Amino acid sequence: MSDLDAVLARLDADLDAALGRLFAFLAMPSISTDSAFREPSRRAAEWLAEDLRSIGFDAGLRETPGQPIVMGRQAGGGAGRHALFYGHYDVQPVDPLDLWDTDPFRPAMREIEPGRRVIVGRGACDDKGQVMTFVEACRAWKAVTGRLPLGLTVLIEGEEESGSLNLPAFIEANAGELKADLALVCDTGMWDRETPAITTSLRGLVYEEVTIHGADRDLHSGLFGGAAANPIHVLAKILGALHDEKGRVDVPGFYDGVPELPEQVRREWLSLGLDAAGFLGQVGLAEPSGERDRSLIELIQSRPTCDVNGIWGGYSGEGTKTVIPAKASAKVSFRLVGEQDPDAVSLGFRRFVSERLPVDCRAEFIHYKGSRAIALPWDMPALAAAREALTEEWGRRAVTIGSGGSIPVVGDFKRTLGMDTLLVGFGLDDDRVHSPNEKYDLSSFHKGMRSWARILAALSAPA
Amino acid sequence: MSDLDAVLARLDADLDAALGRLFAFLAMPSISTDSAFREPSRRAAEWLAEDLRSIGFDAGLRETPGQPIVMGRQAGGGAGRHALFYGHYDVQPVDPLDLWDTDPFRPAMREIEPGRRVIVGRGACDDKGQVMTFVEACRAWKAVTGRLPLGLTVLIEGEEESGSLNLPAFIEANAGELKADLALVCDTGMWDRETPAITTSLRGLVYEEVTIHGADRDLHSGLFGGAAANPIHVLAKILGALHDEKGRVDVPGFYDGVPELPEQVRREWLSLGLDAAGFLGQVGLAEPSGERDRSLIELIQSRPTCDVNGIWGGYSGEGTKTVIPAKASAKVSFRLVGEQDPDAVSLGFRRFVSERLPVDCRAEFIHYKGSRAIALPWDMPALAAAREALTEEWGRRAVTIGSGGSIPVVGDFKRTLGMDTLLVGFGLDDDRVHSPNEKYDLSSFHKGMRSWARILAALSAPA
Repeated sequence: MSDLDAVLARLDADLDAALGRLFAFLAMPSISTDSAFREPSRRAAEWLAEDLRSIGFDAGLRETPGQPIVMGRQAGGGAGRHALFYGHYDVQPVDPLDLWDTDPFRPAMREIEPGRRVIVGRGACDDKGQVMTFVEACRAWKAVTGRLPLGLTVLIEGEEESGSLNLPAFIEANAGELKADLALVCDTGMWDRETPAITTSLRGLVYEEVTIHGADRDLHSGLFGGAAANPIHVLAKILGALHDEKGRVDVPGFYDGVPELPEQVRREWLSLGLDAAGFLGQVGLAEPSGERDRSLIELIQSRPTCDVNGIWGGYSGEGTKTVIPAKASAKVSFRLVGEQDPDAVSLGFRRFVSERLPVDCRAEFIHYKGSRAIALPWDMPALAAAREALTEEWGRRAVTIGSGGSIPVVGDFKRTLGMDTLLVGFGLDDDRVHSPNEKYDLSSFHKGMRSWARILAALSAPA
Repeated sequence: MSDLDAVLARLDADLDAALGRLFAFLAMPSISTDSAFREPSRRAAEWLAEDLRSIGFDAGLRETPGQPIVMGRQAGGGAGRHALFYGHYDVQPVDPLDLWDTDPFRPAMREIEPGRRVIVGRGACDDKGQVMTFVEACRAWKAVTGRLPLGLTVLIEGEEESGSLNLPAFIEANAGELKADLALVCDTGMWDRETPAITTSLRGLVYEEVTIHGADRDLHSGLFGGAAANPIHVLAKILGALHDEKGRVDVPGFYDGVPELPEQVRREWLSLGLDAAGFLGQVGLAEPSGERDRSLIELIQSRPTCDVNGIWGGYSGEGTKTVIPAKASAKVSFRLVGEQDPDAVSLGFRRFVSERLPVDCRAEFIHYKGSRAIALPWDMPALAAAREALTEEWGRRAVTIGSGGSIPVVGDFKRTLGMDTLLVGFGLDDDRVHSPNEKYDLSSFHKGMRSWARILAALSAPA
């Protein structure tokens, strides 16, 4: 029996104990967006550091102005190779609590269809369950061989769900300690329940708020209607013009730096057979609404988008009020891909708005976020190694996918540490992360550990 | 000294006491749109009934399913002629409270420019101040001559600001008691600070709420952006299309029944010299925003309009949330003129929205209001009499104007009681009715009472 086979067998035999550890971790309400949960958050960090020490990491808590970061290091085999693993121990808030079938912090096992068991609780997937797939793989390697296949530094933060405010400075301040050959992140999803995936691109994000101002006060529409500029009309007209008839974003220059998908990737994606009925049907929709000439999988993975995320102005209470409001506002975000420049998109949007203002209106802007898209090198050796490992574990060829969302830490690793990131995760579309009744399939947890055990072996092998 | 001269002198001498009474009335927060204010509303009604009894009316509270109506009757001179006076004792809500310079229910006198004193407080103009100009005129006639110049019924409701929901049924149920030769209303404005006005036409109103529904839940724009229909985009595009490039309302059939102004009226209006600098400049605007080919005075008095009065959807809190909301809503109102049919406008709007819905969206509507425009007969004898009286008091020829706003009770008086209404009021464009720091010029209050004293005399004289 090879070392790897022994490690996999150990993971199978130890599954119940691993679940016990995960449930203990899930029971701690480490909600980072609410300061009332500072103490349970800290307890979760301490619990995790203790668990990492028990398998040989020199782990401890590193203070930040917010929640502490759990960090630990351990040498290993692999000819001196070293990887940095990133995850987070904080979880989303749980409201609305009345939509949960069980207490979000009393994790439970449920069978949601014959033979399909899932772990239910806040953080079951995002990100405690995913983090523990990696920790359990390390534990098994240590138990079987006495050491890790390669050197590892573990960095588990406690503020991901509240914007990772203190993480970039921490990475900068501790660059020497954190620098490794490669970063590993377990916070993404599979393609479907049978098909593992490696996420190779992440969209960037520009987030702006715009307020259109008209008169210097709210006006009575009976007195001023027909004469006074109405900021809601102006805002609606501008937002309504953001997309053209073909569903393209009509901001000049918006598509500068947007690459076409390599033909090989396009073919691979199309072969996955994602259809609107499956993807949109689950939320009550039928047809893709974006660019008309793009396939659904391109729209959600590799095309840039623009969404108005909020709008408000005038009277929104019950009944009627005949007001022409002094102002109206909207929050508008853009997902970026390829080489799109966040500053140029932000500027292009502001110009788009300003050029459409009638004489009596002015626009005011708040810039919240601007981050570039990230694309990992397709020829990264670790990518091929991990793909092979995943394919062996799941019996299906692992696919490489783009993610519509953003994981900013990957940009920090690249910029600050000059390090690429391998994104492997076992979440599923129906995991309800950030929603009531969050769950993680038992198969994600179990085969997830086994996948990491294989990946660690693959990364330690000579290239 | 004629009776009228004695009455006018009495009003001058009694001004401070009259202000004291008004301030007591203003101090009662009779906000009808908020049920938390039921008790103070009732106190205001009781206070007013008591004051009317003190000057000879058989006044009391008449219950409705909502706030009580104050009603009282008193015979007078004028060869048996009888008029019905209508006003309202309820006021608008006061939020945003932090924009008030003083407590809205602690009325105060302020000098806003040298020699220009104003009464500040919620209801100072709309409609407590205006109602009291009439009551004080009655009080002075009683004090000086022992009786009113003509018979009067006073009807002061408490729900005007919340849509007068119970008034039409009350008028129908009490038609015999309320029927008079003429109705008088003091809830309109002057032309400017020096020029009195009689309002001879009122625009109608259609008020609709529309909600656009997309997915069956809020979605994460990182996962669904570019694929899922965004109800805010759909709503913005539809609302942005309501007006064409020339500022006309683009709902098919909207202008059916809209009359051209008689040439004589147009000439009189244009001679008033209303300009954008004067009318719009006071609220920080410079250019009329409605139909490009119409004069400003037409736009605000005799043309139909469409205004979005409120819009909301998605995230409007601090910071960012990358949500594609399940729905977005707007409140949309139309001011009607001439023979425009409210039902046709309502239907036309709904069709306009429905025809523009993409495949995955549906629209839901709430109909709040639909009332026709009203035009008073230009040859009404009371109109000439009142015009003469106002011209004498103010030393400037009183003008007849159209009002952009709606006073639905005038339609009820016509339909249910077969009675025309004389609309005389002393509000000014800068009174901030419905806004923070509402005020009423002391000259409006003082010369307003004197005006009513003269009008009552004029209406009692043989035709």
